[in-house]
Amino acid sequence: LWGEPIAIIAGDALFAKVFEAAAANAKRLGLDGAHAVELFDTLSKASFEICQGQALDMLFEERADVSEIEYMRMVSGKTGALLEASAKVGALSGKGKPEQVRALAEYGRLIGMAFQMQDDVLGVAGAQEKFGKPIGSDVREGKRTLMVVRALATAPPDDKDTLLRALGKRDASEAELKAAIDVLKRAGAIDYVAERARGLVAQAKLKLKALPESRAKEVLLELADFTIKREF
Amino acid sequence: LWGEPIAIIAGDALFAKVFEAAAANAKRLGLDGAHAVELFDTLSKASFEICQGQALDMLFEERADVSEIEYMRMVSGKTGALLEASAKVGALSGKGKPEQVRALAEYGRLIGMAFQMQDDVLGVAGAQEKFGKPIGSDVREGKRTLMVVRALATAPPDDKDTLLRALGKRDASEAELKAAIDVLKRAGAIDYVAERARGLVAQAKLKLKALPESRAKEVLLELADFTIKREF
Repeated sequence: LWGEPIAIIAGDALFAKVFEAAAANAKRLGLDGAHAVELFDTLSKASFEICQGQALDMLFEERADVSEIEYMRMVSGKTGALLEASAKVGALSGKGKPEQVRALAEYGRLIGMAFQMQDDVLGVAGAQEKFGKPIGSDVREGKRTLMVVRALATAPPDDKDTLLRALGKRDASEAELKAAIDVLKRAGAIDYVAERARGLVAQAKLKLKALPESRAKEVLLELADFTIKREF
Repeated sequence: LWGEPIAIIAGDALFAKVFEAAAANAKRLGLDGAHAVELFDTLSKASFEICQGQALDMLFEERADVSEIEYMRMVSGKTGALLEASAKVGALSGKGKPEQVRALAEYGRLIGMAFQMQDDVLGVAGAQEKFGKPIGSDVREGKRTLMVVRALATAPPDDKDTLLRALGKRDASEAELKAAIDVLKRAGAIDYVAERARGLVAQAKLKLKALPESRAKEVLLELADFTIKREF
């Protein structure tokens, strides 16, 4: 409607609103100085890390040699930091003990990373009517998902070429997309990533041992499972 | 180098860094909960208001009927809120009394508005080698500065047409720019705005009566005068 400059400013304005809402919340809860400062420190550092992760995600699109370690670092920022901050802010708002705050923060980062991996899997192997986004659009955009990273590292040369031809090709045909996704399947990359995501969720659930038994803890355990069981 | 998407993210990342620096500062100063929360509330509300002001500034470029009240509201956000927050955060960090925090906040907003008006004046009537930006670029961009608002409200029809023809014309010739600036001069708009800016600075200096005599107060009084005496 009003063009990019106004859209950019609207984004900045929403960014500011996050901190304003957090300040209102901290005030309502009567947080002490140390808890209030840690809350804002958490939000600001997470915002920065999400920006870094998002930037890496876009910069990776130009590269054919992204390693699994680089992917993990990117996803830890792009999605892990967001869920870590969400869980940690809840822990701080609830005036949790330091070890509980730490446990919930770690839980959040782990399920955030698993969530992103499952998202990537659904993006090539999901059912479009459930997932809501066109299957294969990550391939068209040239996203270096962990499946792509894995397949480029392990697939035979012909398959690798097929995949690289479709990656980042905005006008790739359905046949080209299907061929690229078949490469991911043949390389076992989809199963590989699903297995990695399951591992992260298992780790996340272990972190919750620091919390007393409660309905809230049950919900967090269910939420951890949901990140990888969901089909949408 | 990397295009607009990365530039937008870099802007968001810098935004996050502001809050991170504020959190580090609040921690170092050992602020209590109420002061810490007010500090972050101030920064987030100012950020939002600056976005609003900046958006208005851009939206005004499409309009020929911006009123002086609308201009004042825009500049109060775009530049007033920034200087208000700067002064207020200083007052909060110094653990000022509520009436001192309020006085410094008001001082900041007033000199912020005066600063912007002087900026607008220098943009058409300044010396380019001192000011650093091309004289008349605001006219090319179609900025509804208070001088333009005033001239469009008071200049004779012919002059108004001359001004409107140059406003927002990116490729306006030097002669067209000079003719538009001459309209502002003939309408007394430049003197009018300089007078308004002087009034704001006088009000700002009165606010400082809430502070005890000190070297810091002298600096703030000098800073208020500087906003309208500067030529750069």
